[in-house]
Amino acid sequence: MTGRLTNDRLSAQFAFLNEADKLKRVLRATTLCDGSRAENSGEHSWHLALYALVLADQAGPGVSIDRVIRMLLLHDLVEIDVGDVPIHSANGQAHGSAEVQAAEAAAAERIFGLLPGDIGAPLRALWEEFEAAESPDAVFAKSLDRVQPVLQNIESGGGSWIDYNVTRAQVEARVGAKVARGAPGLWDWVRDRLGGFFPD
Amino acid sequence: MTGRLTNDRLSAQFAFLNEADKLKRVLRATTLCDGSRAENSGEHSWHLALYALVLADQAGPGVSIDRVIRMLLLHDLVEIDVGDVPIHSANGQAHGSAEVQAAEAAAAERIFGLLPGDIGAPLRALWEEFEAAESPDAVFAKSLDRVQPVLQNIESGGGSWIDYNVTRAQVEARVGAKVARGAPGLWDWVRDRLGGFFPD
Repeated sequence: MTGRLTNDRLSAQFAFLNEADKLKRVLRATTLCDGSRAENSGEHSWHLALYALVLADQAGPGVSIDRVIRMLLLHDLVEIDVGDVPIHSANGQAHGSAEVQAAEAAAAERIFGLLPGDIGAPLRALWEEFEAAESPDAVFAKSLDRVQPVLQNIESGGGSWIDYNVTRAQVEARVGAKVARGAPGLWDWVRDRLGGFFPD
Repeated sequence: MTGRLTNDRLSAQFAFLNEADKLKRVLRATTLCDGSRAENSGEHSWHLALYALVLADQAGPGVSIDRVIRMLLLHDLVEIDVGDVPIHSANGQAHGSAEVQAAEAAAAERIFGLLPGDIGAPLRALWEEFEAAESPDAVFAKSLDRVQPVLQNIESGGGSWIDYNVTRAQVEARVGAKVARGAPGLWDWVRDRLGGFFPD
């Protein structure tokens, strides 16, 4: 490969990495554990990758933790264009709507398209696998993505549950079922700690 | 394993993950690409893991990108206790001093010690491998850790170079040599883009 081609290739790689920096400015409904400010989607993605590393023993058979980590590093990049759609917003109807899905697909096209094709195509495929939530790796990754905000809410004293007026039944339906699908042991542990927030 | 033991084990895993959340409040000398605010060490760690994923073709022989990613996810956790020591602070003398190294070792003992031993010990070993900067994985990880702030400074118009009154020779010595050690192609690309910041 000539110097010129190497140069162009690296310029594309850095254009993507500089673009990714914008994810640090996308704010989520969840706060840090101390409640001091909203969490951003960049630091959230880091925290989730650390969840995968530390909670690997909760994954089902056939899960590759390294693939899960790669997925989690990428999973929110489309929010650079679309923003974060909180799971409890619009009474739980906005997250995963057809409109949001179409916008996220267009964002993936643009953002992964900044990379040389041999790098961008497999990364985009990994994001699509996460979105489809069918492979063992994606199901486990989704479980972690759902359980982390629960931990942050418990630590901060209620967090986005209070902001969105969420009931225990809604947490069970929107969050619990998906955590339990990929990591049943995690949901057992977490459910035991919800009592103080949703007296019923 | 009984339910009680599973419970204790998960409690330790979550205690670590909740503690790790504090890294999102450790601020660095470098800003985001748009210069709008200081970068924190949590989002920095995410960005670096993404660097490893996207710049894998710049790694030397024998480098495992998945191990590099794991290292980068962990590499700054000790800053929860010690804070970030900017590379250009105290005229370049503070970073890596014996005092800082001792404080970081104590922090590693405390933070990785929150985990069950079978999880914490290998993660601490990975952090020590990064700090030693001898294995191919650690050398490449260090190169990425050094080059990312350079990209952020270029994007933001000078950033911490201006704050610390840094010369081009100091960037070459404190940063360039270490980037070039693990990823010479990256430093070639970056060096060509420094002219505007350090007219000489």
